[in-house]
Amino acid sequence: MIQSRVHVSDLREHIGRTVTVCGWVNTLRLMSKVQFVIVRDNSGLVQVTHKRGGGLLEVQLDALTPESAVKITGRVADAAQVKLGGLELVPEAVEVLNPAAVPLPIDEQTGIEHRLDWRFLDVRRRPAAQLMFAVQTTLEQGMREYAYAQGATEMHTPKLMGTASESGAEVFELGYFGRSAYLAQSPQFYKQMAISAGIEKVFEIGPVFRAEPSFTSRHATEFTGVDVELAWIDGVEDVMAFEEEMLAHAIARVADAHGAALREQCGVEITVPVTPFPRITMAEAHDILREGGWDPEGVKEDLDPEGERRISTHVQQAMGHEFVFITHYPVSIRPFYHMRPADDPSVTLSFDLLWKGLEVTTGAQREHRYEVLLRQAAEKGMSSEPMQHYLNAFRYGCPPHGGLGMGLGRVLMVMLGLESIREATFLFRGPNRLTP
Amino acid sequence: MIQSRVHVSDLREHIGRTVTVCGWVNTLRLMSKVQFVIVRDNSGLVQVTHKRGGGLLEVQLDALTPESAVKITGRVADAAQVKLGGLELVPEAVEVLNPAAVPLPIDEQTGIEHRLDWRFLDVRRRPAAQLMFAVQTTLEQGMREYAYAQGATEMHTPKLMGTASESGAEVFELGYFGRSAYLAQSPQFYKQMAISAGIEKVFEIGPVFRAEPSFTSRHATEFTGVDVELAWIDGVEDVMAFEEEMLAHAIARVADAHGAALREQCGVEITVPVTPFPRITMAEAHDILREGGWDPEGVKEDLDPEGERRISTHVQQAMGHEFVFITHYPVSIRPFYHMRPADDPSVTLSFDLLWKGLEVTTGAQREHRYEVLLRQAAEKGMSSEPMQHYLNAFRYGCPPHGGLGMGLGRVLMVMLGLESIREATFLFRGPNRLTP
Repeated sequence: MIQSRVHVSDLREHIGRTVTVCGWVNTLRLMSKVQFVIVRDNSGLVQVTHKRGGGLLEVQLDALTPESAVKITGRVADAAQVKLGGLELVPEAVEVLNPAAVPLPIDEQTGIEHRLDWRFLDVRRRPAAQLMFAVQTTLEQGMREYAYAQGATEMHTPKLMGTASESGAEVFELGYFGRSAYLAQSPQFYKQMAISAGIEKVFEIGPVFRAEPSFTSRHATEFTGVDVELAWIDGVEDVMAFEEEMLAHAIARVADAHGAALREQCGVEITVPVTPFPRITMAEAHDILREGGWDPEGVKEDLDPEGERRISTHVQQAMGHEFVFITHYPVSIRPFYHMRPADDPSVTLSFDLLWKGLEVTTGAQREHRYEVLLRQAAEKGMSSEPMQHYLNAFRYGCPPHGGLGMGLGRVLMVMLGLESIREATFLFRGPNRLTP
Repeated sequence: MIQSRVHVSDLREHIGRTVTVCGWVNTLRLMSKVQFVIVRDNSGLVQVTHKRGGGLLEVQLDALTPESAVKITGRVADAAQVKLGGLELVPEAVEVLNPAAVPLPIDEQTGIEHRLDWRFLDVRRRPAAQLMFAVQTTLEQGMREYAYAQGATEMHTPKLMGTASESGAEVFELGYFGRSAYLAQSPQFYKQMAISAGIEKVFEIGPVFRAEPSFTSRHATEFTGVDVELAWIDGVEDVMAFEEEMLAHAIARVADAHGAALREQCGVEITVPVTPFPRITMAEAHDILREGGWDPEGVKEDLDPEGERRISTHVQQAMGHEFVFITHYPVSIRPFYHMRPADDPSVTLSFDLLWKGLEVTTGAQREHRYEVLLRQAAEKGMSSEPMQHYLNAFRYGCPPHGGLGMGLGRVLMVMLGLESIREATFLFRGPNRLTP
């Protein structure tokens, strides 16, 4: 790494010494007697103050452009009058490592779509966006930390499939050495195969692909999924218990590591959730909605986004909790592999997790009995033939199991109060967006 | 989780008590006076011993089939004569959670391709395969641990690209809402964009896709890549230093957590490598090969697999090290974005890392200067137009940087002495294999 480099946030420890700062030209104020350059690295901003008097340094500073990558060596001086940390850097040498063209293609007023075209500049220039990726890192590691302490194994399941998995709709198809392959919509089938392979707890973070022409603030054609699958469970309750503990642990890590920065830079307060999270059945959810005067046509079985928001608001008011598990989804709106309780075959042993009104997870106990799976698939009008490799995993002693799939971007979106999944993703992919 | 379940490896702590064991029927010995069932969970094997005398239990045990998933509740008894841990389980209740069909489709003699068809059974029945995934988990977490301690950020870059990236060859193409998209061959371009976005150290573990019709023991069409990219470097040496420390840390974690099990179950000894690893230039490598009598036609610039093995053998003998960095690859066999040293434009500031004769990593300092990148792309006969989104990232102050891409399966393959990448992957994907 560049010799004697000091991050901006550490400069106070170097008052009186000569150090090197590496970063970008944030702003330039080139006055008649003094040149001010505000330099930004990913830890903060520092003022470089140079009194004019001729010489190379003066010429170099006059030639700087915003966002150029610079390496400035200088003496760190205490300077109470400087707003940025009460110090300044008095330059001795300036090196432009990479000049930026002028003008910049985006500024503070640029709208989201054009910002996404220049996402690298958008992220580089906004400390809140930088912070989001630091939060993502901590959040993921927090989840892994919990999962591995519980004995989970990290699996990498294939994204290339030989047959379109669940339905055939909403699946991307590609050419594969003279035949077709498909992109996995989720690691569902493969993580169940891992369960049948004797992996007791499966953990995977990876891309999932949905060929849905959705243009909402919460859909993407490619997003990062957090997947868990647990063997030898007693019931779906085990899966919900795992998830709430994993989230509480990970959110606590985020609060520890970034709570103060999030408050300052984003005005966001992280609340570590208390476990257990509230649980209500879908039937109870509908009762709550009707009592609240919400009973939209055509949403008799599922919850629409407005219904989800209303349920979360109700739970927040009645129970003081940001999270709520909705359980017992009807068979009609759940896939064939969700298990059904023996005493009520009209519902499934499944759940969604809502956080502040947004669905962030779907989970279930899976049907592990081959004959029952075949019957449930047939009921949904599905042919077992293209799924034979999947179904085979249940013919030789696959244990009881259940799991969940979480959208990482959605979790970040809710946690940081972002308006769109586009802001919670480095490079968003949607029906109209495959670049940059 | 199933109440009062005890893992087999913990049974000794429960002598005299009644516990529940969950696992698979490993073997059955149904004698005239006694029924023996060996049950396997992912921690070991235990003998269930039942004296015949009529009753439900006897009927249930007689009906068991190999690999059925069972839950057996019984008393743990000290039994010095039993080879498996000197204890046995005297059953009180047996529940078949999922019966296995007979016969099993694979056995100990089954060849690799047919084993892959039934990979879940293959992995479930071989403790060494189970161990491999535990090692994978530890290895990855070890690498993350090192990277995050160095300030790295976890990024998830898109696998869907709007244009075929580096060359157009060896890229999978898919239909995307009426146009074409392509699967990323590596996160290369996107992790460089993250560097330009101000992320100082980028870390990603994710799938990469190669449409190569290769059938070797070390190629796959989809594999898990470990990618690192570092900003503000002084040179490629910084990248190599990061990699060797990351690997040494992660391998030490594996040795700690699984060293004894790997010795016992796989006959594998994990050597934690000393840093720094040896470094030799490609020119030196060719000298070494020629001195050793190896000078194959047509491999004047690169190393072929036999050359790589010979170099590793030489380094092992001369320097006592399993790893070696080969540096200064010629321009002709490296991509246009590899930086070239000012004093010798015929080579690149790049490296491969060999481990015991197998290439496990390619890395380089990247060219970050827009004009130079354009020139180098043109020299390689590439059109800048389809790469404009990539090239844009260098027009506005992208800092100096470099990075590496590592094949996770290859690292596991060498570490565990596996014959093929197929054994180091949960569900292998090759030109002829898209299932299960």
